[in-house]
Amino acid sequence: MRRTITGYSNPTVKYLRSLRDKKHRRREGKFLVEGLRLLTDALESGRVPEILVMAEKRDPHSLIDALERAVDAAGGEVIETSPDILSKITGKDNPQGVAGVFAEFDTSLAALDRNSAPIWLVAQALRDPGNLGTMLRTGDALGAGGLILIDDCADPFSVEAVRASMGAVFTQGVARASWEEFIAWLRQGEGQLVAASLRDAVPYRGAPFAAPCFVMVGNESQGLPEEYEAACDLRVTMPMRGRADSLNAAVAAAVLGYEVLASLEG
Amino acid sequence: MRRTITGYSNPTVKYLRSLRDKKHRRREGKFLVEGLRLLTDALESGRVPEILVMAEKRDPHSLIDALERAVDAAGGEVIETSPDILSKITGKDNPQGVAGVFAEFDTSLAALDRNSAPIWLVAQALRDPGNLGTMLRTGDALGAGGLILIDDCADPFSVEAVRASMGAVFTQGVARASWEEFIAWLRQGEGQLVAASLRDAVPYRGAPFAAPCFVMVGNESQGLPEEYEAACDLRVTMPMRGRADSLNAAVAAAVLGYEVLASLEG
Repeated sequence: MRRTITGYSNPTVKYLRSLRDKKHRRREGKFLVEGLRLLTDALESGRVPEILVMAEKRDPHSLIDALERAVDAAGGEVIETSPDILSKITGKDNPQGVAGVFAEFDTSLAALDRNSAPIWLVAQALRDPGNLGTMLRTGDALGAGGLILIDDCADPFSVEAVRASMGAVFTQGVARASWEEFIAWLRQGEGQLVAASLRDAVPYRGAPFAAPCFVMVGNESQGLPEEYEAACDLRVTMPMRGRADSLNAAVAAAVLGYEVLASLEG
Repeated sequence: MRRTITGYSNPTVKYLRSLRDKKHRRREGKFLVEGLRLLTDALESGRVPEILVMAEKRDPHSLIDALERAVDAAGGEVIETSPDILSKITGKDNPQGVAGVFAEFDTSLAALDRNSAPIWLVAQALRDPGNLGTMLRTGDALGAGGLILIDDCADPFSVEAVRASMGAVFTQGVARASWEEFIAWLRQGEGQLVAASLRDAVPYRGAPFAAPCFVMVGNESQGLPEEYEAACDLRVTMPMRGRADSLNAAVAAAVLGYEVLASLEG
């Protein structure tokens, strides 16, 4: 289906614009992805937008043509509109003139196969969508299975998180759960839960990591609750040579994750 | 000196507010720091604000008292104002009711002593102030000497960078230089320049790092120019098990920096 929208007050424009808001995303179960690169990443990962929005008079591009064909083939909707209306939808200049709407993925723990990857990242009450997206990107680089979001985290389907993930939101599994749900799920099978900690910990370098290894980081300002640290199978320390006693959450996950990767492959 | 400001249109309010803007910071050579934690970090690092701004009717706090005494002792200015005016200055709610103005530090390469630390971080055309601040924070944790900003980078004295640094802007050296200035300075003494690269590189794990080691990362979207990679003494690869061929710049600096630290100390 194909149509052209010319008015700012068109209900579809309002609908698309509303997807920048978490509450509306949740209610609709859809999210918005901006830019040709991310949409192409999605397509290469087998994800086709339900709605493709393109600016009129955009520069021709073979990747946009490929997106259009894929959306047509999947029975999706292609909308053409003015660059101004597209900017209104995405909230910024969109020089590539393209955005897409996707159905949110299943984010239940049950959808994860823990034995499909040696490493999983876990974030607890992570508030910054940029950190969340960066963790997805790091997970992709590590060959991790996905990111498990514990307690009240930023929205992995926000524009900021999707952008920071550099497309990894389409390749990494994402699950959302309470701590009780997560720990119950984890203990139903194999899995080593690891966190950086100052309590009863061993040096991270050369620590006895085991697959599937779940690398957990805590909230940006509070860190992990003591109870969560106590439930870990392995607590590790990382060198802190300066004034501070912690790293940025996404940085800590990456340094620890790369150590786990080297350990498991060494 | 102590005074109370009650009007939004007071020139000092306009001056303080203008420091949120890069152009004005550069011209004045001053920067704004918000919040009790960062100001206390600064004080512990021996940096006293030239101006301390406090909200009237704030909750009493011994750390605020300590700041006040330090500013008085250094001959600085203490300003009391309404919470609303303070919010206008800092551009957000400031529940701790305190902000400070500091003189920008010397950011010339000549101010750095390369032999004072085994690791230095180098960023080229880094555009995101959050990434920049995160690199400062990581540098503090690594015991690095500081961060060298090559070409046109985000401003290390922006509110966002200072906040993401978690106070490390006060403990890490910061230098700004063109590539030509940097490489000329580097080659005047000891120093190994290292970057992650896909060209003619060795695995990062177990690579022959040597102090003082300068770990360089490139622009968020472009990476390092080929010429800069070619000028490195050591090019290393990091595992990329997924779709993407790069990490977030601050993450890459941290993973590489922790490997250098382990190598030099091992």
